[in-house]
Amino acid sequence: MTYIFPTFADVRNAADRIAPFAEKTPVLISSAINKMVNAELYFKCENFQKVGAFKFRGACNAVFSVPNNKASKGVATHSSGNHAAALALTGRLRGIPVHVVMPSNTLDVKKNAVADYGANITYCEPTLSARESTLKTIINETKAIEIHSYNDEHIIAGHGTVALELLQNIADLDVIIAPVGGGGLISGTCIAAKGINSDITIVGAEPKGADDAYQSLEKGEIIPQTNPRTIADGLLTSLGEKTFPIIFKHVSKILTVSENEIIRAMKLIWERMNIIIEPSSAVVLAALLEHPDENMGGKIGLILSGGNVDLDNLPW
Amino acid sequence: MTYIFPTFADVRNAADRIAPFAEKTPVLISSAINKMVNAELYFKCENFQKVGAFKFRGACNAVFSVPNNKASKGVATHSSGNHAAALALTGRLRGIPVHVVMPSNTLDVKKNAVADYGANITYCEPTLSARESTLKTIINETKAIEIHSYNDEHIIAGHGTVALELLQNIADLDVIIAPVGGGGLISGTCIAAKGINSDITIVGAEPKGADDAYQSLEKGEIIPQTNPRTIADGLLTSLGEKTFPIIFKHVSKILTVSENEIIRAMKLIWERMNIIIEPSSAVVLAALLEHPDENMGGKIGLILSGGNVDLDNLPW
Repeated sequence: MTYIFPTFADVRNAADRIAPFAEKTPVLISSAINKMVNAELYFKCENFQKVGAFKFRGACNAVFSVPNNKASKGVATHSSGNHAAALALTGRLRGIPVHVVMPSNTLDVKKNAVADYGANITYCEPTLSARESTLKTIINETKAIEIHSYNDEHIIAGHGTVALELLQNIADLDVIIAPVGGGGLISGTCIAAKGINSDITIVGAEPKGADDAYQSLEKGEIIPQTNPRTIADGLLTSLGEKTFPIIFKHVSKILTVSENEIIRAMKLIWERMNIIIEPSSAVVLAALLEHPDENMGGKIGLILSGGNVDLDNLPW
Repeated sequence: MTYIFPTFADVRNAADRIAPFAEKTPVLISSAINKMVNAELYFKCENFQKVGAFKFRGACNAVFSVPNNKASKGVATHSSGNHAAALALTGRLRGIPVHVVMPSNTLDVKKNAVADYGANITYCEPTLSARESTLKTIINETKAIEIHSYNDEHIIAGHGTVALELLQNIADLDVIIAPVGGGGLISGTCIAAKGINSDITIVGAEPKGADDAYQSLEKGEIIPQTNPRTIADGLLTSLGEKTFPIIFKHVSKILTVSENEIIRAMKLIWERMNIIIEPSSAVVLAALLEHPDENMGGKIGLILSGGNVDLDNLPW
């Protein structure tokens, strides 16, 4: 099976496809934080996206890319987080069934969000193999189309619209920093940004406690993440075979960050910018705070990936 | 002494005067909250204003309205909160001295903000009489111009630019709801909004534990606030003789809200909108949640006055 990488044209088509549904999120600045890191930072606020995260973009592009003659069977995925909510909402927008496999230990607030959007939920043991086998059973029964949360070309192209919009707002960025989990966001960022300006530097930010992307780029092959330990619960997964090659080709470096720095960066953004972001978003600023020696300077775009947090359990 | 009320022209002049310095803050919506209250709400986000509160607008207008031949002596005020920071910053922007009297029990974080902007701080006993007498002494020594935090026509006109901008964004609002403390914000709101459209309904929102404006409008005279008890620490003060007449003439009603409803509304905005607002901002949504019988319907503008909170002491 030959996999064709998404192109810049795919990102532009995704932008047109999701335009009726997705928010054009704002780009915010903080002069106080600029002073701290001695650079001009531009924060792309996907915490203001539908379902509170960039995941809506890829899901929306994927759901509306399913051909009409296959759409009636619906779409399916396994997810414990934002992808599940994003798929549930976009499926409802298209008016097709959505089947979501969720691990039984998923937080109630996340279960309820997916249920509220009208998706069919099947619970399973909280292991990757149980999630995959349960999903396989459901797809066999329903003939739904699987939409993986990141290892999918439509997801990647949809996520690329974040950087496309960011560069439409701030054309002369020198660097874009994106968080790295499964790699869907940063691989889309690469395709969009390099399609606009091949000189832009793309940097990944990753928790030290889930540094499979750092390891994978060092080795030149996918090193699966085992036993991740981080508060950034959107960044636990391993790179996929569709995201790794794009990242390997285009990302200049991955900066890993400690848990303390993630929490410090998260609180700093809450305090100085009066916006709510989740820990997985904070890694991009944490990367600058923890690696002042990298001295990237210039104009830096930071992708704040989402804002879904439990306000009753804050990490400070 | 005859007091001339600020006019709509004063608000427009204030808008021009502060334009180089103030943020044009965004207007945000939440379809989830709209559904809860069965109306179209437009949140004017002064939590994204400089110093994190609308207070910057009035202070900026007042500081830049001081005639050149008097400005070199500087400006002075007493304040424990956002007005102190706003005056300190705008004084620095104009390059003139700022003298601030702060009660000795002011939180360190607020003292530091004012000190960081380069203001001269004098501490006094935490009583209104000590604040006023200390300020008088300082003004006698320095010949600085006093800029009261709300009982001042330039402050009122500057605060009116919030509603001016809101109506420039959303022209056909039926109602605007603003919080009521000393009355500077809501009186400016009245002048701006009624100057644009005399049919707009202006509603005040006030904590039950500091309901002097409600009492004052009932009696038709200023009833001073004694012993206020509310988490909304920006709304403790009494109306002034410059704000009361404007409010009495133009405000349709004051809706009072319980502490529980303030906290519920604050958390709802954090959760659904991913923005950080302070309790004093939350009263405007609390008013709708606690008074569904008012059934205002239509298009309602809500002024979110600020976002300065202590993230280590949240009320839930």
